[in-house]
Amino acid sequence: MKYNKEDEISYTFGAFPTVELLKNKPKSINRIIFSDKLNITDDVKKIEELAKTNGVKIETNGKLISKIVDKDNIFIVGEFKKYEDKFVDDNYICLVNPSDMGNLGTVIRTAVGFGIKNLAIIRPNADYFNPKTIRASMGAIFSINIKTFESFEEFNKTILDYDKYMFALDGETYLSNLKIDKNRKYCLVFGNEATGLSEEVKSYGKKILIKHTQKIDSLNLSISIGIAIYEFNKQTILNK
Amino acid sequence: MKYNKEDEISYTFGAFPTVELLKNKPKSINRIIFSDKLNITDDVKKIEELAKTNGVKIETNGKLISKIVDKDNIFIVGEFKKYEDKFVDDNYICLVNPSDMGNLGTVIRTAVGFGIKNLAIIRPNADYFNPKTIRASMGAIFSINIKTFESFEEFNKTILDYDKYMFALDGETYLSNLKIDKNRKYCLVFGNEATGLSEEVKSYGKKILIKHTQKIDSLNLSISIGIAIYEFNKQTILNK
Repeated sequence: MKYNKEDEISYTFGAFPTVELLKNKPKSINRIIFSDKLNITDDVKKIEELAKTNGVKIETNGKLISKIVDKDNIFIVGEFKKYEDKFVDDNYICLVNPSDMGNLGTVIRTAVGFGIKNLAIIRPNADYFNPKTIRASMGAIFSINIKTFESFEEFNKTILDYDKYMFALDGETYLSNLKIDKNRKYCLVFGNEATGLSEEVKSYGKKILIKHTQKIDSLNLSISIGIAIYEFNKQTILNK
Repeated sequence: MKYNKEDEISYTFGAFPTVELLKNKPKSINRIIFSDKLNITDDVKKIEELAKTNGVKIETNGKLISKIVDKDNIFIVGEFKKYEDKFVDDNYICLVNPSDMGNLGTVIRTAVGFGIKNLAIIRPNADYFNPKTIRASMGAIFSINIKTFESFEEFNKTILDYDKYMFALDGETYLSNLKIDKNRKYCLVFGNEATGLSEEVKSYGKKILIKHTQKIDSLNLSISIGIAIYEFNKQTILNK
């Protein structure tokens, strides 16, 4: 019953991501499972309410939870069928070969926090349906459209008319000096944690550097993405 | 031999943080320990060179490493005496009760990446000398001055003439609208991951909000700090 990447189902662990699942993807839910030891908190009441509204079944079954979850401090599990998203006509974040589930979850949470609706991921990639990623995203994963692609070239066909910004340590333009055209749609592209973007991928757009001191090798990937989304938001939405 | 918070020594695990230790705090080092299985890479040559220059002893002792480290993929350990830092006359980051070592390490790496020299931490706090924090900081911890204080009130006595910015979800001023006075020194203050800043601490400065959508509860702490440091850098240094 433990989560397996190849399975067609996955799980939310804990109240917070389960609430987000119920709010955003109710039709994908198989069932909500409560532990026998669950205390009735406000979150639990909210889950019961949302489940009722959406016709989602809740069962109390501590044994089942312990088969699904390793830790014994999880009292709520949401079981859902993995689903396919569709992109909407809006800006993009693109991650090329992200390898860390914690980073991926944090990036998703940040992206949703700044109103990003589309996340393209180039394979191979950390599993975004893994409960670990879902937890790191605090359930924000259910509020963003995610699709994977075989290569950047393939993804690029869907965003031919977008401005593409490739974040790289050899970027010629500093993010802090960049003037963004508010009337153009954009895609922000980030490489793998260890290896960055390949020359081939970088050739599709404008290379951007988030300038930092020589005292560190590079910024953490999720920090870089957070800063980039903030700056783009600031110039295109917040101060429009 | 495993690291203990109460001990007077701590360790760097792996080549990267050990190089930073040698570069920045050579006098605090007791010894460098190599595994018998260590391959001679460029990093290893660099460590040997830096150790020689600084009169630091290297010993090859795989058994000792396995007593210090849990994982068996660590081949280099730096053993050092915990040291006391002094602040310099410059800007500050202040963390009130940070509780997560991974977050703390990432914040330190980001702060060093943007040239921050002083980090004040209000107790109780995650242990910044824990090898986990050091690793998350990628060794950047050896390039920043850290001191802890009993309370914000106590720390505040040392920065009476600084502009203080308190990052809080009830901030009245958006970071993206803030105009920073380039001629004033500043301290950016952030609360605990779960509980944020208390009303009392917030009363010492100007409350700032990093605006995000209602789709998420809050931004991750290290992401918020990354964005804040970037914006302050942009306005005060990068585009001076």
